[in-house]
Amino acid sequence: MTSLDFPKRLDTTAQAIERLLDRLLAPEPLPGEIARPRHLMEAMRYAMLGGGKRLRPHLVVETARLFGRDDEGVLRAGAAVECIHGYSLVHDDLPAMDDDDLRRGKPTVHRAFDEATAILAGDGLLTLAFDILADEATDPDPALRIALTLTLARSSGLGGMVGGQMLDLEAEGRFTPDGQPLRADEASTLRLQAMKTGAILAASVEMGAILGRAGPAERQGLASYGRALGQAFQIADDLLDAEGEAATVGKATGKDAAKGKSTLLSLLGTEAARTRLADLVTEANAALAPFGERAETLRRTAAFVAERQS
Amino acid sequence: MTSLDFPKRLDTTAQAIERLLDRLLAPEPLPGEIARPRHLMEAMRYAMLGGGKRLRPHLVVETARLFGRDDEGVLRAGAAVECIHGYSLVHDDLPAMDDDDLRRGKPTVHRAFDEATAILAGDGLLTLAFDILADEATDPDPALRIALTLTLARSSGLGGMVGGQMLDLEAEGRFTPDGQPLRADEASTLRLQAMKTGAILAASVEMGAILGRAGPAERQGLASYGRALGQAFQIADDLLDAEGEAATVGKATGKDAAKGKSTLLSLLGTEAARTRLADLVTEANAALAPFGERAETLRRTAAFVAERQS
Repeated sequence: MTSLDFPKRLDTTAQAIERLLDRLLAPEPLPGEIARPRHLMEAMRYAMLGGGKRLRPHLVVETARLFGRDDEGVLRAGAAVECIHGYSLVHDDLPAMDDDDLRRGKPTVHRAFDEATAILAGDGLLTLAFDILADEATDPDPALRIALTLTLARSSGLGGMVGGQMLDLEAEGRFTPDGQPLRADEASTLRLQAMKTGAILAASVEMGAILGRAGPAERQGLASYGRALGQAFQIADDLLDAEGEAATVGKATGKDAAKGKSTLLSLLGTEAARTRLADLVTEANAALAPFGERAETLRRTAAFVAERQS
Repeated sequence: MTSLDFPKRLDTTAQAIERLLDRLLAPEPLPGEIARPRHLMEAMRYAMLGGGKRLRPHLVVETARLFGRDDEGVLRAGAAVECIHGYSLVHDDLPAMDDDDLRRGKPTVHRAFDEATAILAGDGLLTLAFDILADEATDPDPALRIALTLTLARSSGLGGMVGGQMLDLEAEGRFTPDGQPLRADEASTLRLQAMKTGAILAASVEMGAILGRAGPAERQGLASYGRALGQAFQIADDLLDAEGEAATVGKATGKDAAKGKSTLLSLLGTEAARTRLADLVTEANAALAPFGERAETLRRTAAFVAERQS
């Protein structure tokens, strides 16, 4: 693999996901659907189309590719994870939640449409994710489709992503009596982040392993990779929030500090956080050792996640 | 079956669903979950526990029973449908949507907790529904579990319940230039209602048929029953909104007229709506003819739906 291959692979998957989402969010109803309301479809397309790194589908695709699997079903599973990621952004941006006006450099869904439409677009995307996985176009084997469904549901629900967002909201705006931010400890911060962002990244890798019919030892190694990658992603996100420019990052920055939010960065300091980030990339790569050269794209993905500027 | 059996069956299922939901919403995380945030679990339990007719689980249970199936897996499928129904109420009550303060005679979730918690509790319940169906405790056969998943996802998503709520919001508050409510026609009103409330009722019956491994002809008959039942439910709902007392119905009444909303009642008038309701009950029962005496509970269910006072 040359150094040019990684950006090309990332981009190829992103384009394939864009085309697939465009079809999945078409105005024509599927069998069993009655009709697709135009206004709702416009909001869902606005939320989902027009770019994005598609990191989670990339993880599904590249993990499945480790086992020689590379087909439409893999892309569909990637699109399902992207629908979960997309709905979570739409709902998290709502006024009652993070109250954000800007996402990927354009107005958030509730600003471009309205709050009710944003709530329903999110609900529709969440439900569509499971529709996509349950459809036989994803894989002829029902046992494989149900394993994908369970992995995505459990990682994104109340004990994963949704629960993490709840903890995140609870952690905001807590100050000591003399006005200092009330710091959570490292263990609870790690747990919050493992739920809010880590679980779905790890699930993307796990779904790739399910699609590739990985054995138990292979799945264990990939689970370690997914966990380390998720933590690295979050530290990189903290650094971007603290040091990035809004124009480059594509959303408001400096929000964690303004909210007095505990992050690994605020707990460890910048230098120790960067050391931790490097250690996590090393740990992620070590977990890929049994796959040898085949895992080169996943290794580069870990480096990409740690070094990203947006 | 004596006339006493129907209320008892309805009540027995409701109690079994209450106990099952209590376990499914326990504070202990499932395998694959990291933790269950206490505040979120409280809001989900508040939304889901403490009564309700549990009509949708009743339909799952009684349809499966037609085929001699009556076990914990059937109740789990019923609980999954109830989670979808419950999340839709939590989100529909939000200020940006129907802005309701009262539900089943107690404060709505966003009033008892707050808006952010209500949004997340809804998202958590929606996701939990698919977690429940995908878990092997629902049925040992992955093909059956994935069929349940697809049926629930497609009926409750953008081409069903979520899409119906979008159409319903769009239909509100539309007036002609001289201040008269702008009436939708019967076809578009029927379509809206088939999506918003009919699809999930029909899906409950279909899931019972899937659990009972019904044959194609049996499934077709039950689909007709489910469609007629869904329409009857909506006309009864319109009549309750127009004629019921808030204290009996357990939520605000008279809202359709205040919003200038087209219903079958406003389009047909009370007398013709009551005739249509009776015809739908006849149609629902006719669809059950091939099942003979076995379908007596489902027949009584159609009458119950048409005559309910809350």
